[in-house]
Amino acid sequence: MSTAENEKSVQTAQRKGSLLSFRPDIKVLDATLRDGGLCNDFRFTDEFAKALYKANVAAGVDYMEMGYKASKALFDPQKFGKYKFCDEEDLRAVVGENPSPMKLSVMADVGRTDFRKDIGPKKDSVVDMVRVACYVNEIPRAIEMIEYCAKQGYETCANLMAVSKAKEEEICAALDMLGNSPADVIYLVDSYGSLYPEQVAKLTLLYLEYGDKYKKSIGMHAHNNQQLAFGNTIEAASWGASYLDMTMNGIGRGAGNCSSELLLGFLKNPKFHLTPVLRFLTDYMLPLRAQGTVWGYDIPYLLTGRLNMHPSSAIAFLRAERSDYAEFYGELQDRD
Amino acid sequence: MSTAENEKSVQTAQRKGSLLSFRPDIKVLDATLRDGGLCNDFRFTDEFAKALYKANVAAGVDYMEMGYKASKALFDPQKFGKYKFCDEEDLRAVVGENPSPMKLSVMADVGRTDFRKDIGPKKDSVVDMVRVACYVNEIPRAIEMIEYCAKQGYETCANLMAVSKAKEEEICAALDMLGNSPADVIYLVDSYGSLYPEQVAKLTLLYLEYGDKYKKSIGMHAHNNQQLAFGNTIEAASWGASYLDMTMNGIGRGAGNCSSELLLGFLKNPKFHLTPVLRFLTDYMLPLRAQGTVWGYDIPYLLTGRLNMHPSSAIAFLRAERSDYAEFYGELQDRD
Repeated sequence: MSTAENEKSVQTAQRKGSLLSFRPDIKVLDATLRDGGLCNDFRFTDEFAKALYKANVAAGVDYMEMGYKASKALFDPQKFGKYKFCDEEDLRAVVGENPSPMKLSVMADVGRTDFRKDIGPKKDSVVDMVRVACYVNEIPRAIEMIEYCAKQGYETCANLMAVSKAKEEEICAALDMLGNSPADVIYLVDSYGSLYPEQVAKLTLLYLEYGDKYKKSIGMHAHNNQQLAFGNTIEAASWGASYLDMTMNGIGRGAGNCSSELLLGFLKNPKFHLTPVLRFLTDYMLPLRAQGTVWGYDIPYLLTGRLNMHPSSAIAFLRAERSDYAEFYGELQDRD
Repeated sequence: MSTAENEKSVQTAQRKGSLLSFRPDIKVLDATLRDGGLCNDFRFTDEFAKALYKANVAAGVDYMEMGYKASKALFDPQKFGKYKFCDEEDLRAVVGENPSPMKLSVMADVGRTDFRKDIGPKKDSVVDMVRVACYVNEIPRAIEMIEYCAKQGYETCANLMAVSKAKEEEICAALDMLGNSPADVIYLVDSYGSLYPEQVAKLTLLYLEYGDKYKKSIGMHAHNNQQLAFGNTIEAASWGASYLDMTMNGIGRGAGNCSSELLLGFLKNPKFHLTPVLRFLTDYMLPLRAQGTVWGYDIPYLLTGRLNMHPSSAIAFLRAERSDYAEFYGELQDRD
């Protein structure tokens, strides 16, 4: 679809649902252990993970992401907590047989997962969904993984990262290829936290065009570099995205994600409950922050987001205990 | 206008401008001393105020709000810094004769200002604009002040607070009365930080209907209780609001306001410059926070925002060093 056509579709499209009603198709996914794990090398205690599981079940969360399925050949298990690898026995230590209605997901990065070795048949696992994360130029490798995981019996999901860097024709080609794959859900991922709500609206309508054609649900994963993670998530939802990622207090790499407390405070489906989330914030997220784990909006992340760049240089800036924002902004523009 | 008609106007209205161009009608107003003063009883140093003035001029800011014109009969000058009162000599100590193109504003609350005593003729003042803040049920008193200030030679502005609590017919009546007043600008004020972008869009279009009829500009003043201050500000701007409030690092009562660094990073008019703002953040806002001034998104503010309540109970909760969010949420619902 051309840009002009997409412009027209935003003008003529209708938002789905209303602020006072709810859409039963909307599902929320808690990514606290996975995206939050990027803040502490996945070193969450068993107590934290178990309490998170209970809080999510009580809050009516649809999916809880337990972490990554990272390759132990590429990443030293001594250097990371267990949620980077999500071994089956480690998951069961947290969720047992998962008797709850909440489903469990793991994320597998293209090129960083020994998927044939580490992802076995669904019948032997408490995991329900595998989410495959890839860049636009990695679609064939992502589809290989999605096909493998679907054959193993899992729900599958494609998280197309960093679309703010991709051209629209590339995104369309990727959506077409993923449309022809077994993926159940295709995610719009604002990896750099650079998208404004108007852009999210246009991209969501573009994704939905392919979603409608190929019978796929569309998801939204936002970052908070410009304090737009929640705003962009409900913008995408209002046009029809139905899988929405969130984390407790917005924990996640750099500026973090859409906060569970904001999203569950907004959604009107009576199956969702805010109070278990609030208790978890008091009992576990405040101590986590007090013990030194750092995340959330900060000026360096705004600057990488505004310039549509990976947050890595902002993370390095803060680790170096620098606060000369103007000089950093100059350096980023030289680098761009 | 009925709700159904307003719904229709959102469907048929066109956003003004685009993400890549700029609208010359957009003006930004820095409210750091005024709304930020609510965080430290207006006790900013002269050095802080002078550096802020210079940073705003260098950044291309259109208006800088110097503080309130509060009644010294109602408020003890010993208990507040000078920016609560904005005596002419105190303003001149900061800005001299204000040789810059940036205009200066002060805010006057209905019922809290001895306006006939404390607001003299424009020819004797460096102030350019008086912004009158009022609730919907105070419009006649606001108009009395607006008429007085306009006759003294000032630009005038009406900040209609807490519209999230008002009925649409009340807002329409207020807009009609303000439309017939000398006010140059009418502000949409989300005092409780409770509005979602879709609501802001509808309200902005409603305000613009009266603005178009009576030749008034429309402004937006947002609060960040739900991390939507920036998102709501650019939403309002995209439909045609042209006066946009912001503060350095979002400082302001409770969860604070739309951040200058976010808004100036977004606006495309080449007259705006982000670097002077970034330098001010490093040199003055980081020390202000380090010295104990508190503002910004926090769970209790989200909860009052979500429940469309004044942030006072959240401020009291945090002052009491409580962190039992779930219990607080229960208390708020009992009180509502």
